[in-house]
Amino acid sequence: MTTIGKSNISGIRLDVSDRRKLTHTLKKFDLVVGALPGRLGYRLVKTCIGVGVDGVDVSYMPENPLTLHRDAVKAGVTIIPDCGLAPGLSNLLVGRAVSQLDEIEYVHIAVGGLPVKRTPPLDHVMTWCVEDFIDEYARKVRIVERGKVVEVEALSGLEEVDLPGIGKLEAFYTDGLRTLLHTIRAESMWEKTLRYPGHAKKMKLLKELGFFDEKPLKVDDVRLPPRRLTARLLDKKLRRPGLGDVVALNVDVGGRRRGTKIRHFYRLIDRYDKERGITAMARTTAYTASVIAQLVAGKFVREDGVIPLEKLGMKPMIFDRIMAELEERGIKIRQISLPPNL
Amino acid sequence: MTTIGKSNISGIRLDVSDRRKLTHTLKKFDLVVGALPGRLGYRLVKTCIGVGVDGVDVSYMPENPLTLHRDAVKAGVTIIPDCGLAPGLSNLLVGRAVSQLDEIEYVHIAVGGLPVKRTPPLDHVMTWCVEDFIDEYARKVRIVERGKVVEVEALSGLEEVDLPGIGKLEAFYTDGLRTLLHTIRAESMWEKTLRYPGHAKKMKLLKELGFFDEKPLKVDDVRLPPRRLTARLLDKKLRRPGLGDVVALNVDVGGRRRGTKIRHFYRLIDRYDKERGITAMARTTAYTASVIAQLVAGKFVREDGVIPLEKLGMKPMIFDRIMAELEERGIKIRQISLPPNL
Repeated sequence: MTTIGKSNISGIRLDVSDRRKLTHTLKKFDLVVGALPGRLGYRLVKTCIGVGVDGVDVSYMPENPLTLHRDAVKAGVTIIPDCGLAPGLSNLLVGRAVSQLDEIEYVHIAVGGLPVKRTPPLDHVMTWCVEDFIDEYARKVRIVERGKVVEVEALSGLEEVDLPGIGKLEAFYTDGLRTLLHTIRAESMWEKTLRYPGHAKKMKLLKELGFFDEKPLKVDDVRLPPRRLTARLLDKKLRRPGLGDVVALNVDVGGRRRGTKIRHFYRLIDRYDKERGITAMARTTAYTASVIAQLVAGKFVREDGVIPLEKLGMKPMIFDRIMAELEERGIKIRQISLPPNL
Repeated sequence: MTTIGKSNISGIRLDVSDRRKLTHTLKKFDLVVGALPGRLGYRLVKTCIGVGVDGVDVSYMPENPLTLHRDAVKAGVTIIPDCGLAPGLSNLLVGRAVSQLDEIEYVHIAVGGLPVKRTPPLDHVMTWCVEDFIDEYARKVRIVERGKVVEVEALSGLEEVDLPGIGKLEAFYTDGLRTLLHTIRAESMWEKTLRYPGHAKKMKLLKELGFFDEKPLKVDDVRLPPRRLTARLLDKKLRRPGLGDVVALNVDVGGRRRGTKIRHFYRLIDRYDKERGITAMARTTAYTASVIAQLVAGKFVREDGVIPLEKLGMKPMIFDRIMAELEERGIKIRQISLPPNL
């Protein structure tokens, strides 16, 4: 055990891919907050259920966490998956909007973490796991069109978005609906990622040239998935501690309430905490997970099973409590309910 | 020895990085045509001189072949370096132009091999050594400004060029002057490479992200220079046999003759030989090397030493003979002498 910083938190170094050791370790705790790379997330959640410990997870896992719902119910365990910014806060807000509608027409999410200023070559700053960052551009995207789930390419659906206080951005499809595909029915649903204009074209080039390929490539006498080398290079070039970031999230849900068309719109703009050196991405991701973890640990959230955040968003008491806790940490979400044409 | 095709040519498989074996093999021949990757070119030429055999080389070697001049003279050997398209034909044409001037003001070369049609993602087709192709974008470029050699970045100096029969292209500095830096004095000299518009920006991105780096990078448990993986990927994506290519070369030399300003301009446009499946790049590179090799072997070129093509271009008899031989192979160079304002 090693002490982290000067706080009363201590650390354990552990190979989480070793199932037996992981099980043995998790047994000692009441609640697990998972903040692992996507490829390890599902395994961690599964182990939590096996051990019988509650879990709050922020990983961008490729698997569907809802497939573990029955096991979690049986084990009497609460699992909150996708508990970061988006998926995460976005789901919570969608749940809130949906609970105020009789009929849902569309759910449109736009979200991005950006450097405060454009910073070549990619106009991006790496604030989270580089492998999951690449996966956002590589993974097939599921959206809903005319009520049906369809698969599209990441980086497609490119459009321009003007964000007050930030300026002109571009937005393109990424696979962020996830549990919403199973929990919400609407005519149209998508998540798009926000970046500075021109970013998508560059990432598309890397993708098309094969730099995101996961299949090992033989080069001289070694075999290496091109994506592994790309991840190392991007991490080297784009991880710039101290470079301020900004997070933007738009959640736009339209539908009907008692026959009248209405639109619920939420906007979050959060900025780098210079004083404490905490990125906006860390703030919006980790504070969300931390607040929810405390609600689960305090038995404020009592439901057993895999409970996605949209379900919590539908409960006014819980939603308001989360909002209040986030606001205390300086994360302010503007809620605007509008007639559909505004 | 293995027979190549149905011709009377036979092959030897040889590790040319093994100096002893290379020396032993070259001894058996009267003339060597070097068509190796750039990193092996200098070594081959040096071995030719050591063995006492004439050599014609097309490799894009990073070293200066003129440093071997004295050794070649001593050995009584003729070496023609940079004997392809550009460097190569370009040097020959510069030599011709210069021989018709009393004073040289500028030497401007623009050259490129392109696919006949734009072909995403890079609008390029790989018609030669992928490693030397990458080196063109990575290697520092020497140009002449106000009579002095200065170093600039490859991919800089971007401008638009309109080529009749091909259309709008872009041009940027590449390190193609080479021996001309030592043999010709002018106020301004540069070589630029021609590509479809937008290509330079894409290659610049790869360069800036570190994909052309030669320093080995540790990725997981292997160490690999990023450029090696990039070379493999580009070769896979851009080598498309049968996709027609076109080669364009502009050589523009301005100066004075008997006090009057004059401009010598040469243009070569060559296209894929569909019937025989020979790319324009292979035609313009290999036919040049082959014609020169025959002139050296036939003692038509008699000078000992390292003789760059601009020197041969200055000799009317040799220049005309080369032009005639190339024309016989369908390679037609238009020569236009103009007053300087046209």
